[in-house]
Amino acid sequence: MADALRIGIAGLGTVGASLVRILQQRGNELAVACGRQITIAAVSARNRNRDRGVDLSGMAWFDDPAEMAEKAEIDVFVELMGGANGAADASVRAALTRGLHVVTANKALLARHGVELAKLAEEKGALLNYEAAVAGGIPVIKTMRESLTGNSFTRVYGIMNGTCNYILTRMEKEGLSFADCLKEAQRLGYAEADPTFDIEGNDTAHKLAILTTLAFGNRIAADDIYLEGISNISIDDIHAAADLGYRIKLLGVAQKTDTGIEQRVHPTMVPYDSVIAQVDGVTNAVAIESDILGELLMVGPGAGGNATASAVLGDITDIAKSRPGAQRVPAFGRPAELLEPYRQAEIKSHEGGYFIRLTVQDRTGVFASIASKMAENGISLESIMQRSKKQHVEGEPQTIILVTHATTEASVRKAVASIRTEGYLVGDPQVIRIERPKSV
Amino acid sequence: MADALRIGIAGLGTVGASLVRILQQRGNELAVACGRQITIAAVSARNRNRDRGVDLSGMAWFDDPAEMAEKAEIDVFVELMGGANGAADASVRAALTRGLHVVTANKALLARHGVELAKLAEEKGALLNYEAAVAGGIPVIKTMRESLTGNSFTRVYGIMNGTCNYILTRMEKEGLSFADCLKEAQRLGYAEADPTFDIEGNDTAHKLAILTTLAFGNRIAADDIYLEGISNISIDDIHAAADLGYRIKLLGVAQKTDTGIEQRVHPTMVPYDSVIAQVDGVTNAVAIESDILGELLMVGPGAGGNATASAVLGDITDIAKSRPGAQRVPAFGRPAELLEPYRQAEIKSHEGGYFIRLTVQDRTGVFASIASKMAENGISLESIMQRSKKQHVEGEPQTIILVTHATTEASVRKAVASIRTEGYLVGDPQVIRIERPKSV
Repeated sequence: MADALRIGIAGLGTVGASLVRILQQRGNELAVACGRQITIAAVSARNRNRDRGVDLSGMAWFDDPAEMAEKAEIDVFVELMGGANGAADASVRAALTRGLHVVTANKALLARHGVELAKLAEEKGALLNYEAAVAGGIPVIKTMRESLTGNSFTRVYGIMNGTCNYILTRMEKEGLSFADCLKEAQRLGYAEADPTFDIEGNDTAHKLAILTTLAFGNRIAADDIYLEGISNISIDDIHAAADLGYRIKLLGVAQKTDTGIEQRVHPTMVPYDSVIAQVDGVTNAVAIESDILGELLMVGPGAGGNATASAVLGDITDIAKSRPGAQRVPAFGRPAELLEPYRQAEIKSHEGGYFIRLTVQDRTGVFASIASKMAENGISLESIMQRSKKQHVEGEPQTIILVTHATTEASVRKAVASIRTEGYLVGDPQVIRIERPKSV
Repeated sequence: MADALRIGIAGLGTVGASLVRILQQRGNELAVACGRQITIAAVSARNRNRDRGVDLSGMAWFDDPAEMAEKAEIDVFVELMGGANGAADASVRAALTRGLHVVTANKALLARHGVELAKLAEEKGALLNYEAAVAGGIPVIKTMRESLTGNSFTRVYGIMNGTCNYILTRMEKEGLSFADCLKEAQRLGYAEADPTFDIEGNDTAHKLAILTTLAFGNRIAADDIYLEGISNISIDDIHAAADLGYRIKLLGVAQKTDTGIEQRVHPTMVPYDSVIAQVDGVTNAVAIESDILGELLMVGPGAGGNATASAVLGDITDIAKSRPGAQRVPAFGRPAELLEPYRQAEIKSHEGGYFIRLTVQDRTGVFASIASKMAENGISLESIMQRSKKQHVEGEPQTIILVTHATTEASVRKAVASIRTEGYLVGDPQVIRIERPKSV
């Protein structure tokens, strides 16, 4: 049997502690699968004395993860600290500079510095594995980077934030408001005390930026993502969507178009009978569309200590099964220097169907006015309907729901702006994009 | 750049021709992704003169695939001929014996000889890759063998035959009979002229046997699979299932139980709101349950020239990215000699819910008799209902539908046998097992 693979783990939170436990409990099985032992030679965390429920004896302790990266007797540096900069960035750079393989679950780090890190890894002949950074336990990175090599990707999209999907699912199933569902998510530990990063789509954007680069070979462009969160989604939207045969999901979508690459994160209506529409609660799902294979959908746990540790473990065992310097899979599917500048397709040029919900004064001619504003902007309607409340009171504001055929974002914005000037709108219009899975 | 990887392709049917076309069209992209060229150095097929729409110039031609395996100047032998024995078996053995890596899409070959071939590959330091053998383009082999290393599997199940899923979907959506849908499937090329192998579950069984071995580390036991096809499913079953909140799918299920490993292929009721229930038409889906990750579901094209070629290509590029003799992933996740004897759990000991449809004479006391037979066999009922036709005619046979709570197959068989003796049954009872996804 080959020499043991020695790993150092930086960060002993939920995922780090799960990983230590699994490596200790599954030592024999892992040795059989990999043809060598995997030993935890070193660990690093902020507080040496905290009880994490795992036995750290026999492992070298480092207060400073960068020092562990530089000095520990290890082959693989496992970064589970999080954060785009600071200790995570410094220690991963130190590890790669030394030629160590790196396994990380850190989406923010990759979204910010992924290309530089990939370049550094290649120069040093090291592997940079990051399966856990996107969609937790779902092996989407390996699938895109390895299984689908040779495919040309057309669209990648998914439900990549469990907090948002939990809230949207609860709103629909229980008829509760966004605020109530958020509170419940916080009580259950599915949402942070400050949930902004999740519910406004930033977390999804980080993950999407990584998938976009894997799909289209551009340099990571996490700052050029069109972003809309779910805090604006009302139970009325969800009910109207259901009546029309849709469910609302927060999707991250990366798509190749004639004008460049679209990257967008927003609440999205997906057909009720599509497979992804059935993905409920904190579960994640990623759909990959490519020219040779067609569409592949992967559904699974997107977060949690064990699910994330499973992905980290897959990355570690991949290295254990290879021999030093033996295998070369560039971090983003092609050498970092061949990644192309990001050519952004503006959101205004997005083409697709739209759901538009308008609250209007109860006035004769409004319906006709809306329909003609749409027509003037070249928008063809699939349906336009007045959504009647249980008891309609004469003179009270009415809700009108439009569903468009494929059109452009620019047309929709112009039409809505034009409707605004007519003076019968009450409050702001709600505009939700419709996304249609190719086949499943 | 490293030396080109030279492959030889045996079998130039739909998949083989797709593969040749893709390798020729995507040469540059593949070289970038793999760090080396992939060249088709040799091909073998039955008829040299057939026009396959691809350019075979510059490739050495072999009439005999075994001769190609023995003599061609190649690094990888790609077997796309099919068949458990004969040329496929002989040439794969010859290739492995020579130390060539083998990529195959041949489920029958693996179900029959997989363990021996894996052993031979290990002895010779060769890789045996077979992603395309199970669920076409869905990367289930790589996911189980690599991404989930360290996980202990509990259940693997899926829709792995597009013909059956197409027929069941059409029956439900159009209200057509099994026979009519089969004819349509044949007309569209989704079913063979002799469809027995697909509709009776044998094809699913081959694939299941491979997944079982990957999941549970037993020697492949394709002959010890409990088999029921879909030809017995009526539109009445599908309607009754829908009324109860289920859909009927032909599933292959491998599951670890206290008494051993269950391998079964049969029509199965899955809850309507589960993700797998929404997988329609020729699409395949595989669910993998394991202790660390939880449940992962992968949905995608299970057949077709391109989808299968995509999986074959992934296997080839994996080899191209590694260096000769550099990586060791045992074919079934652990060395072949460590695969354990198959310990079969009898179908009679299967535990789960059951749907039972009985046609009975319109006679007082039948309902009570059925309920008491169930109770006598310790079967607890979730529901028992008389399914009324639109126009009930006094004295005509009635349909009674039972749904049981979790019980054993043995109990159900005893109860049904006991009901048979009562004399009020008309025709044969229909018994369909219910499978519940863990989470999604």
